[in-house]
Amino acid sequence: MTQFTNVNINTKANIYFDGKVTSRTVEFQDGTRKTLGIMLPGDYEFSTSQKEEMDIQAGILEYKVNGQEWKKIENSGVFYVPANESFLLKVHSVVDYCCSYLTEED
Amino acid sequence: MTQFTNVNINTKANIYFDGKVTSRTVEFQDGTRKTLGIMLPGDYEFSTSQKEEMDIQAGILEYKVNGQEWKKIENSGVFYVPANESFLLKVHSVVDYCCSYLTEED
Repeated sequence: MTQFTNVNINTKANIYFDGKVTSRTVEFQDGTRKTLGIMLPGDYEFSTSQKEEMDIQAGILEYKVNGQEWKKIENSGVFYVPANESFLLKVHSVVDYCCSYLTEED
Repeated sequence: MTQFTNVNINTKANIYFDGKVTSRTVEFQDGTRKTLGIMLPGDYEFSTSQKEEMDIQAGILEYKVNGQEWKKIENSGVFYVPANESFLLKVHSVVDYCCSYLTEED
């Protein structure tokens, strides 16, 4: 079982799209943070303030970062979204993800 | 912002009812564990192996522990379920909960 160890976690969830997208914020000892989230089937648009790494741990989705083509991830895969950018998602089956908030140098 | 500090968290989610109920497992330094979860509107039945404390942090639901009456929680409230028991839930709006797994002495 993979774990994040010695972290802090916010007890309240982040809830979007009537609960079809939810996440939990995790803070690491070095001050970085990630969110662990669930997305139910549906079409969503998000925008970033920081660069994001989206690590898909389970599920099937298509994603389109602004200015790029649609791409598909089945079961596992990673994509990146620059800071201050938008991206579209078509979630086909329940997605379990980990989002890391990065600096531009990462 | 309320947090659990210096905990371990499983990176993969627990997914039930096609993702309408999901949770994340948190382990504390003393070996106890809790799950932080989301339930979307719907009717659910669960059963316990340990005694459980269900702390509702947001949302509206009715619950019925086996042998008891239906009761309602709006926005916040706590209920307990004995070990090896079943309970029914009618979730009316998205519920954000924290479930603690207790010993019979708790």
